[in-house]
Amino acid sequence: MFTNFKDMEAYVLSQGIKKRIALANAHDEPALSAVVNAKRKGIVEGTLVGKADMIIDMLHEMGEDEKDYEIVDFDGEELDAAKLTIKLVREGKADIPMKGILQTSNFAKAILNRETGLIPEGGRRLVSQVGIFEYEDRFLMITDAAINIAPDVDTQIGIVENALPVAKALGNECPKVAILSAVEVYNEKMPSTVSATEITKRGIPGCVVSGPLALDGAISMESVKHKSIKDPVAGQADILLVPFIEIGNSLYKSVTYIAGKTMASSICGATCPVVITSRADTPDSKYYSILLAVLRCLNK
Amino acid sequence: MFTNFKDMEAYVLSQGIKKRIALANAHDEPALSAVVNAKRKGIVEGTLVGKADMIIDMLHEMGEDEKDYEIVDFDGEELDAAKLTIKLVREGKADIPMKGILQTSNFAKAILNRETGLIPEGGRRLVSQVGIFEYEDRFLMITDAAINIAPDVDTQIGIVENALPVAKALGNECPKVAILSAVEVYNEKMPSTVSATEITKRGIPGCVVSGPLALDGAISMESVKHKSIKDPVAGQADILLVPFIEIGNSLYKSVTYIAGKTMASSICGATCPVVITSRADTPDSKYYSILLAVLRCLNK
Repeated sequence: MFTNFKDMEAYVLSQGIKKRIALANAHDEPALSAVVNAKRKGIVEGTLVGKADMIIDMLHEMGEDEKDYEIVDFDGEELDAAKLTIKLVREGKADIPMKGILQTSNFAKAILNRETGLIPEGGRRLVSQVGIFEYEDRFLMITDAAINIAPDVDTQIGIVENALPVAKALGNECPKVAILSAVEVYNEKMPSTVSATEITKRGIPGCVVSGPLALDGAISMESVKHKSIKDPVAGQADILLVPFIEIGNSLYKSVTYIAGKTMASSICGATCPVVITSRADTPDSKYYSILLAVLRCLNK
Repeated sequence: MFTNFKDMEAYVLSQGIKKRIALANAHDEPALSAVVNAKRKGIVEGTLVGKADMIIDMLHEMGEDEKDYEIVDFDGEELDAAKLTIKLVREGKADIPMKGILQTSNFAKAILNRETGLIPEGGRRLVSQVGIFEYEDRFLMITDAAINIAPDVDTQIGIVENALPVAKALGNECPKVAILSAVEVYNEKMPSTVSATEITKRGIPGCVVSGPLALDGAISMESVKHKSIKDPVAGQADILLVPFIEIGNSLYKSVTYIAGKTMASSICGATCPVVITSRADTPDSKYYSILLAVLRCLNK
């Protein structure tokens, strides 16, 4: 089981297989530089969809030769740029779609199209985001801090199911999933405890799920002892399922900005890993997000 | 303005005035040891309400002489223990009530009683919790991570008003308050952005309030530049107002358990500072919570 980014990187490099990223609207310095960096590290090749002249100028500024990339010249609607990128992946010409300078909603729309998108056969039409960071002796995952605003019970279960392949790629075949709340007891005045209790009762195949758990009850064995919590997940969670986006988002950013840790992010639920980075992400965060996508490809 | 716990401690000690803590149901090792520790450091005297024989045994085990404390023998209902403790404060026999081994709800009930409690004249009947921790060059405050579950707009405003005296005690006369959400734009599908927009429009005297802001938009100037946010609070927040308890609680515990920082907690809204510590709190966290209460008394 991988427990840190360095080991993950060493493993991917040891496989000697590069994956091809297709960057939608690649004329975007923050996203393009992440692809260039990952290419230099030897884990990907790049297909750059977008305004070719701008892309070439940017590559030159980064000291790159455009001949080392496949450039697909496209200057049009955002949604069409996204569709073209997804088409390349569907046709096997690229492995990992990544978002450049376009609205996330347009990018998601192209992925979620039943005919031309990347929906698994018989699968749910649900994409969700997973963040991973190093915590004590393991990777801790947070889902979903970025896409689903206030998922109902079924959607929350889908979000966990979407996260399981990421856990598997990290070597965790049966992760422990904590459903976060502010307390460990059912309280009808706190809706997150109600949905957590319902999900725990139903269970989710392929993982051990339990909640509600406050963050300390989920990840700190010391706190679990202090609070005398008896629970199969408490103190040992691998995945933190958040009931609302605000919790996940605050937690994600607290880990990044207050704890100063590197967070890699992956978009799940499509037939292949998808990369969306934010311009405020650190170079390390962007690189490890791409690395995680490559690892997920190797694991299929 | 205080920017760290050590300076805060030096200031309180330099004043040479001790405040008296009244501990309700003091026969509780975790709370009693916090009072003993604060007494040893020279910032408080202790009045211990509860089962005298148990309290004396515990004091002896900690190497203390019971003559150095005022012990009020009481063996009865939790609520009555709380009421007796509050009465001591009302009569000026103690300055700071603190919760020992009893339900927080019973302790709060005694404080919130219109006749016998600690409600400010003409004030709101609202207690709330504030947590403070050192972040970059200042104290950052989170409110409310512990008491109010899903406060409406008026209650959220009250929670900010409750926090202002704490900011003032820290030397901040006009704090910047960020209303947390997952994004910086109004989105009717995300209720926290709706209430944040409403509060920002109304404003709160004595502070600069703005939201919705995601955590990075609230506290990171780098992120503010990346996102091109134009806002008087963005990147410089002193107080983080959370729209639901789950956000505050996760954030509070992330700062403690993931970032490994010391958090001091204070209960606001009563006529005096109130201390509630949790048994899972570190000794430092308990000590600085008492120190913050003493500082608030000095500031009145």
